[in-house]
Amino acid sequence: MTENAYAALEKRFRRYSALSGASGLLGWDQETMMPSGGAEARAEQLATLDVLQHELLATPAVSEELARAEADSSGLDPMQQANLREMRRVHTNETVAPADLVEARSRAVSACVVAWRDARAQDDFSAVSGKLATVLELTREYGAVKSEKLGCGLYDALIDSYEPGGTMAWIDPVFARLKAELPGLMEKILERQAAGPAPLSPEGPFPAALQKQLGERVMRALGFDFAHGRLDESAHPFTGGIPDDVRITTRYSENDFTSALMGVIHETGHALYERGLPVEWRNQPVGSSRGMVMHESQSLLMEMQACRAPAFYRFLAPLASEVLDAGGLAMTPENLNRIGHRVARGLIRVDADEVTYPLHVMLRYDLEKALLSGDLPLKDLPGAWRDGLKASLGVAPEDDRDGCLQDIHWYHGSFGYFPTYTLGALAAAQLFKAAHDALPDLDERIAAGDFKTLLGWLVENVHSVGSAKTTDEIISAATGAPLSADAFLNHLSTRYL
Amino acid sequence: MTENAYAALEKRFRRYSALSGASGLLGWDQETMMPSGGAEARAEQLATLDVLQHELLATPAVSEELARAEADSSGLDPMQQANLREMRRVHTNETVAPADLVEARSRAVSACVVAWRDARAQDDFSAVSGKLATVLELTREYGAVKSEKLGCGLYDALIDSYEPGGTMAWIDPVFARLKAELPGLMEKILERQAAGPAPLSPEGPFPAALQKQLGERVMRALGFDFAHGRLDESAHPFTGGIPDDVRITTRYSENDFTSALMGVIHETGHALYERGLPVEWRNQPVGSSRGMVMHESQSLLMEMQACRAPAFYRFLAPLASEVLDAGGLAMTPENLNRIGHRVARGLIRVDADEVTYPLHVMLRYDLEKALLSGDLPLKDLPGAWRDGLKASLGVAPEDDRDGCLQDIHWYHGSFGYFPTYTLGALAAAQLFKAAHDALPDLDERIAAGDFKTLLGWLVENVHSVGSAKTTDEIISAATGAPLSADAFLNHLSTRYL
Repeated sequence: MTENAYAALEKRFRRYSALSGASGLLGWDQETMMPSGGAEARAEQLATLDVLQHELLATPAVSEELARAEADSSGLDPMQQANLREMRRVHTNETVAPADLVEARSRAVSACVVAWRDARAQDDFSAVSGKLATVLELTREYGAVKSEKLGCGLYDALIDSYEPGGTMAWIDPVFARLKAELPGLMEKILERQAAGPAPLSPEGPFPAALQKQLGERVMRALGFDFAHGRLDESAHPFTGGIPDDVRITTRYSENDFTSALMGVIHETGHALYERGLPVEWRNQPVGSSRGMVMHESQSLLMEMQACRAPAFYRFLAPLASEVLDAGGLAMTPENLNRIGHRVARGLIRVDADEVTYPLHVMLRYDLEKALLSGDLPLKDLPGAWRDGLKASLGVAPEDDRDGCLQDIHWYHGSFGYFPTYTLGALAAAQLFKAAHDALPDLDERIAAGDFKTLLGWLVENVHSVGSAKTTDEIISAATGAPLSADAFLNHLSTRYL
Repeated sequence: MTENAYAALEKRFRRYSALSGASGLLGWDQETMMPSGGAEARAEQLATLDVLQHELLATPAVSEELARAEADSSGLDPMQQANLREMRRVHTNETVAPADLVEARSRAVSACVVAWRDARAQDDFSAVSGKLATVLELTREYGAVKSEKLGCGLYDALIDSYEPGGTMAWIDPVFARLKAELPGLMEKILERQAAGPAPLSPEGPFPAALQKQLGERVMRALGFDFAHGRLDESAHPFTGGIPDDVRITTRYSENDFTSALMGVIHETGHALYERGLPVEWRNQPVGSSRGMVMHESQSLLMEMQACRAPAFYRFLAPLASEVLDAGGLAMTPENLNRIGHRVARGLIRVDADEVTYPLHVMLRYDLEKALLSGDLPLKDLPGAWRDGLKASLGVAPEDDRDGCLQDIHWYHGSFGYFPTYTLGALAAAQLFKAAHDALPDLDERIAAGDFKTLLGWLVENVHSVGSAKTTDEIISAATGAPLSADAFLNHLSTRYL
């Protein structure tokens, strides 16, 4: 019997996708709805689904089908061929490491994250550094196994888990340019800002229920379809669910409606990307989002480019005033624009503005490479963090809580993730510029709360591609040039100076 | 290698249970949170989990392990032995029918349910009778295969899917007694009711948010732990989730707060049963609820026995007045008690009071047995329904919408389910009487909103048994006698006459 290997793989990956979707919903529920007493059982459910997903792909039949399909892929159309490439990638990621390494790393990460929460609360890096050393060592082992399989460097193998095909060779020149120009630009922006008026704070409280209404109104304007998604609350905002049922979350501060709103817009950018993925490839690898750079570019394009454009505040100010029943000088487009563009030398990455954010990221990029190579011993991390931040931003944390204990990523074993934030910001600027060039009336449309043509452009040039091309191929095709820092630096100059 | 077969089975069933829990949550979300556009993907997720659950047990290794464990179960303690019995039962149910029959029946049911919705809306039984004939035929085939495996009659094999071990021989004498006494009792109750004052309707509207507050206050009083569960809204109230995270739902009518509240109390009874199941057997078959009779007994014990007791209204009236900001003569304990005990010859089972409800159930019991045996041709069902209701209740529907198109059960392939409603009501009365005898101050406690001793009694005598005993063993041990209609009939006489 000569079964069609490719067709058999599509069937398997359809099942794999259904399990991913089920896990995604359980994860969403865990953060939004689940009472605390459900945690243990939920962890068991998620672990069981994980094991079943792994088993689906780890069976020798899949390796054999992949080999057969690749050996004779001439009958496949281009999307099927791309799908086959992505199947291979998913299969490699799922099976590359031996089971005992995966299990040891997963256990080490769990223990380290627990220790990190305490260490952070008590500002005591030494309380977690031993566990972090174990995570680092197991991550190195994992990276080594994967780099051998992929034929690439160890750090590149780690990046690949978040940004398929991402490499240091791609990142370094882009970051070098930012390092050279961003600090000076920041100084100029801060100088100009100091000479102008400080923004007024809109006077709350703004009840969460009204903020939610405002968020939903803006989501609708951006193109979010509530027949295919929801907005809920969680401690840490995220986008979950599946393309046909995207669940985004935010958290509300009653004193400041802008933070939840900008969070909603950010997650809506992620959600619209998911929703715009190619419908006919819903349950296949090629129908998935490309990677973290592309995903972050879509959230930041909405949050930082489109919905911090001065034109947007002409739409937002009257809408927010109406829904929140607020007014006065603090609610004018000009003042809201000033709030949205406040720049500061801060210590905390997640609170940073778009100007200083890359400086936070690049510090982490340098430090994590040095940790992995062994050039930076773990015991020297706190000092290296302080010195690094001082050198690039001009400020340094007084404690490790606001320093190297700030982010969960490393303690969670996520090395190679940080650069995707800033690459996403650069891609956002570059894509928005291309959209702006292609849609001459975009500013007026944004001022009118009409995002239809922008979303149409994004769906056509980015979302509907799915994973059929690499990140740089998508960006090049959409903007005429590979990813660079040009558009981002131009955007900062134009917007802030 | 002499692997311990029982231990291997426990591991498999733990995974099976985690998948059940995951499916349960997906089902809950589908009814409460999911936007309509997520339906197709959700159906695929649920079907995939179903297949994986089936595959977990359908592998020959499980049959072999079961046989080995049963052949040498001397080393197992009584709970483990009971667990092994339940594993066999679950395995039989999961694997008894050939895959093509399961699939054909599932497809026939889906098509029939869709056709039923239309047929009901258009009051046209002939539009669905062909599809119902197919479902009936495939259900007969399924019952035949299962009855051969279990060595029992066809209808008993179908009952077993809802009430393990339930038989016609168990049901018939109990129902015969009800048939003999209930119509006369109903006449007396209606006569007495007609001589008294009609209840006043509390004047709404009662906002859903306040009704929810009231529901949660009552749930807390009954012993519901919100660290292990939630209350939400859905079109049809149900209890979902898992014992450590029980999700109950209700629906609110702004004109009448009592219907949602009594629904909440009913589901809370189900939830408390789940929550009280033996903690140390959470992921094993013996740790599951016993069956539909026991489950319905726990919901009806709360709804009909404890929370319609005159004492309860002394607790409820001031609480409801406070939370709903309502008052007047309609909100007195006496009036709320009258509302809770209104009896009527109605056409609709789900709207029926506890006096007439068994008459609705017994009609369906007789009709479904006759349908399965072939004694009643499908074309004669509408007439048989009308005649049967007229004979027992004294009223007959003018159309099939309120007649044989009323309930989804048969169209959904659920034959053998209906009797569990009434057996549950009888068990509720019998258990509540035993609790009442054992807890002499129960009425005063209920009047004070204190359900601790009642819940403690139920946990000890019912919930914590899990599936270690049969329904009748649990009832006999708790009440001193097997299930009968005595307590129920006494309860009706005492409460209503």
